Amino acid sequence: MPAGHVWAGQAGARLGSTMKNNATPLGPKADKLTVRRHNLSLVLRTVHDAGEVTRAGIATRVGLTRAAVSSLVEQLLEYGFVTESGKTSSGQAGRPGTVLEVARTGPAGLGVDINVDYVAVCVVDLSGTDRVRLVEHVDNRGVQPSQVLTRAARLAARALGSAAEQGLQPAGARVAVPGLVSGGTVRQAPNLGWKRVAVEGLFAQALSALRPARPALPVSSDNEANAAALAELWYGAGTEGVRSFLYVSGEIGIGGALVLNGELLRGAHGFAGEIGHVVVDPEGPLCRCGARGCLEQYAGQAALLEAAGIDTDTDVPGVAELRRRAQRGDGAALAVLEGAGRQLGVALSGAVNLFDPDAVMLGGVYRQLVQWLAPAVDRELARRVVSGLWSEDRSRLRAASPLGDAARGAAGVVVREVLADPAAYAERAGR
Amino acid sequence: MPAGHVWAGQAGARLGSTMKNNATPLGPKADKLTVRRHNLSLVLRTVHDAGEVTRAGIATRVGLTRAAVSSLVEQLLEYGFVTESGKTSSGQAGRPGTVLEVARTGPAGLGVDINVDYVAVCVVDLSGTDRVRLVEHVDNRGVQPSQVLTRAARLAARALGSAAEQGLQPAGARVAVPGLVSGGTVRQAPNLGWKRVAVEGLFAQALSALRPARPALPVSSDNEANAAALAELWYGAGTEGVRSFLYVSGEIGIGGALVLNGELLRGAHGFAGEIGHVVVDPEGPLCRCGARGCLEQYAGQAALLEAAGIDTDTDVPGVAELRRRAQRGDGAALAVLEGAGRQLGVALSGAVNLFDPDAVMLGGVYRQLVQWLAPAVDRELARRVVSGLWSEDRSRLRAASPLGDAARGAAGVVVREVLADPAAYAERAGR
Repeated sequence: MPAGHVWAGQAGARLGSTMKNNATPLGPKADKLTVRRHNLSLVLRTVHDAGEVTRAGIATRVGLTRAAVSSLVEQLLEYGFVTESGKTSSGQAGRPGTVLEVARTGPAGLGVDINVDYVAVCVVDLSGTDRVRLVEHVDNRGVQPSQVLTRAARLAARALGSAAEQGLQPAGARVAVPGLVSGGTVRQAPNLGWKRVAVEGLFAQALSALRPARPALPVSSDNEANAAALAELWYGAGTEGVRSFLYVSGEIGIGGALVLNGELLRGAHGFAGEIGHVVVDPEGPLCRCGARGCLEQYAGQAALLEAAGIDTDTDVPGVAELRRRAQRGDGAALAVLEGAGRQLGVALSGAVNLFDPDAVMLGGVYRQLVQWLAPAVDRELARRVVSGLWSEDRSRLRAASPLGDAARGAAGVVVREVLADPAAYAERAGR
Repeated sequence: MPAGHVWAGQAGARLGSTMKNNATPLGPKADKLTVRRHNLSLVLRTVHDAGEVTRAGIATRVGLTRAAVSSLVEQLLEYGFVTESGKTSSGQAGRPGTVLEVARTGPAGLGVDINVDYVAVCVVDLSGTDRVRLVEHVDNRGVQPSQVLTRAARLAARALGSAAEQGLQPAGARVAVPGLVSGGTVRQAPNLGWKRVAVEGLFAQALSALRPARPALPVSSDNEANAAALAELWYGAGTEGVRSFLYVSGEIGIGGALVLNGELLRGAHGFAGEIGHVVVDPEGPLCRCGARGCLEQYAGQAALLEAAGIDTDTDVPGVAELRRRAQRGDGAALAVLEGAGRQLGVALSGAVNLFDPDAVMLGGVYRQLVQWLAPAVDRELARRVVSGLWSEDRSRLRAASPLGDAARGAAGVVVREVLADPAAYAERAGR
């Protein structure tokens, strides 16, 4: 619809706002089945967002008749997407209504987070609650991608087993990787040593081999920081009203993602957010990406531990060791964190000048180090952000929520696909 | 509509796409007047986007009946928003139809661009054509904001006179300034020396004083690079399909704006795109913004001319002089441009890594210098953009279109507001 596109930028925003985000019942021009599919999703999402709501409450919110809402709710009950909680609620008028909520069994999402030093899987139910969570600490560097994905598939198969025991049937799996991901392929993940890896195909194959009798699970993929930022949006700071933020994830390297007005900015090719490769010093040390002086050479986990003289072969305890040293006031450790904070602050101030977010969330290993990094980061932001907003309000720099991990975000994407078209899930599940 | 917001990011995009951008007739739930207003805009925008189209063609595109379209077209003809071109067109079936196009008289927009070394005004008609264009070269530094705005209002009044002679009646004026603009105020424009200037009020007052007998023109305001980027989107590279780009405007300082999928990214507070204040060297020279080592200290017009030893008090001829020297192979001039290109390339590679655009457009004075800047910029982008896309395709770095200036973009915003709600314009104009 090229004609429509022109209107998104400026003037259309006002009139268009009521139409956006799929939150309006479709008109009579769409065919009846499309309308019903759309409205099924609308009602289900209304229950999801409200937490608890009556049929009358839904009718008021979405602007459909009570009869139409009742018929849609019947179908959602039959499919098992919503349940009656047993409670009743008396609204402003009329009889008390039965309270509805989304089902805690049935549809779910499986998220898989493959990082350099761990693999994590998470199963999230329709309400967004994480019902299964498994983490395996393991060094994935120098290991064949197919082996790493087989390892991840084994963990996923175990999680699917636990999910099944709880009556959950994931609609799909989404694999997050710290690298450039597009079209089902990891274009490159320098810290894993991956180049052009068909991550979706390899993972699906490995998982199918472990579950020969089951139907294959649809597999999608994403960048790890994107998935973590979505988790932050849906389950972390976003639930407190932070709708525009820069998410920076300290890992072996540094991942990043941009969320603006509740939407993840993926960029034209899906590669946005790579703050780890913003230049800090054009003549600096060579980065695994091939360029020189990238931020992650100064403030990534590997760089931090090396500067502090901590053995990087055992890197997860390494961060704990750096934290312990900082806690007992070790001057060298404090200097390393101060220096990394300064470089991080310089790069972040550029990103804030470009993107103008409400907040910067420090995730990954930075969560454990934030108290020593934050003063230097704050100082650079206050000094360098041209709007001055960042000198007025130091609470803009925040530790990421522990609830906002990449596996949960990836699982959340699968769940949201179910909520966006419950009929499609029901058809596939043969209901 | 907080419930709906959650859906914009991920899963909702698919189903939501048909609903976005205000391009669908409203359903029966909206009240009748709202529906008619909306559909009037829909039909008008369809004529605008098509250039020439019959009533039958409109009906096919928007999914309304021919009778409904005819009634809406009658009203648009009566209001003077569209005209019958006199041509007929035979479609695939039925009688030949009369060809409609947007009117070249009546509604228009006035754009005003206040820069450090010039003021420009532009009147754009409903079709997007610039019908009046006036530029005054003048040094606005060290001059009271109210004086600068009075100067701009005089130029605007002259442009409004010429517009009236052509039968054009601008619906409003939009003033673009190279600084941080929000809520009708220029928060700061360091290169103009402005701080907290109520630009809309001052300009409206000055213009009203010059046109005492006329009704006051509504005045809005924007950042200059934002306005130029919108002009690039609507009248320049955007018309050739470049929908995601970073716009960098070389002026006394450096302005910037981000367009993603045909939408300008304004950021959470309206301050996005400030690439001029991305850090190139944390310990570098002091910038007018108060920080050190900002890009504009290395690659802004003032920095370029100073490095080349060209008198910066006569800055517009200064750029022409730098260009002349480069053309005749002056080693010092070439070295200055090469160095600035390198710094620009380093900062741009960070922005590209963060934002992943399809293209970078070099605007402002960079348009005249692009052949000497581009090799170094390209080299840094090829080396530092982590996706590798920028080493594969050197055509991603482009000179901005000469059609894409800030005054025209600002005027275009006003025109698009008319197109988004023609009934509101007609009511104000007393039709």
